[in-house]
Amino acid sequence: MSAPETPMEIALAEAQAAAARGEVPVGAVITDASGKVIAKAGNRVEAENNPARHAEMLVLAAASAALGERYLSEHTLTVTLEPCAMCAGAIAAYRVKKLVFAAYDAKSGAVDHGPRVFAHGTTHHKPEIIGGVGEQAASEMLRAFFEGRRG
Amino acid sequence: MSAPETPMEIALAEAQAAAARGEVPVGAVITDASGKVIAKAGNRVEAENNPARHAEMLVLAAASAALGERYLSEHTLTVTLEPCAMCAGAIAAYRVKKLVFAAYDAKSGAVDHGPRVFAHGTTHHKPEIIGGVGEQAASEMLRAFFEGRRG
Repeated sequence: MSAPETPMEIALAEAQAAAARGEVPVGAVITDASGKVIAKAGNRVEAENNPARHAEMLVLAAASAALGERYLSEHTLTVTLEPCAMCAGAIAAYRVKKLVFAAYDAKSGAVDHGPRVFAHGTTHHKPEIIGGVGEQAASEMLRAFFEGRRG
Repeated sequence: MSAPETPMEIALAEAQAAAARGEVPVGAVITDASGKVIAKAGNRVEAENNPARHAEMLVLAAASAALGERYLSEHTLTVTLEPCAMCAGAIAAYRVKKLVFAAYDAKSGAVDHGPRVFAHGTTHHKPEIIGGVGEQAASEMLRAFFEGRRG
């Protein structure tokens, strides 16, 4: 793989690195309005034996800390998989400006599936949302990972 | 207030302590099957300038770390306010056995309101849920806090 350039390429590289560590391959990156990377991470559930260490949770906390700002109102979260309810709720809590994700997750997603966290008035912040960016690469990475586990 | 005894009394004491620090008064505690307290905390959003530092997120991570166990399958989370989507998603991720909460939160809750996180098949774990325990004390604490802020 050549040097990653777009936010989704960076997120996919983080997902690939996560898979190499035995993690479910999900990667995420926070960029500012100019496209500068503020934080990037892959899943660390296995590494920390902690089911809340999703890539999204890690980059949200890291970006907020790096910027010294509570909210990410001018920032984009790019992630390789549709966020779950926990991560979608955190995206609202951090008031992320824009959410870009790759693979739709009919099994566990909570943006376009199930709880549809941003579709309710009780979720007080809704980012701009673009799903399906780089979907094929992300889905193939996830499929290869789970096929490898069964093998 | 006399020494707290029940998990909800402990959670309310944590909420009270949070209010004294200028935090929205929400407190939480994780207990094991014998009722032993594994972790307790109040909101730390202001203290850490981090919108994800809800009392529930803090005690879930602390209990998992203290026990050295990824899941809290034999544990009860007692919290003074109906969890939001982020916290409800985390409760599912940690596979908490039982959720007890005090005040219903029609404005931001995600258990009995809005996304109703546990009402969807895409949420793969659903705890036993008891709402309304100690509701009056928790609601009065929240009301007093927000009235004080406006004053």
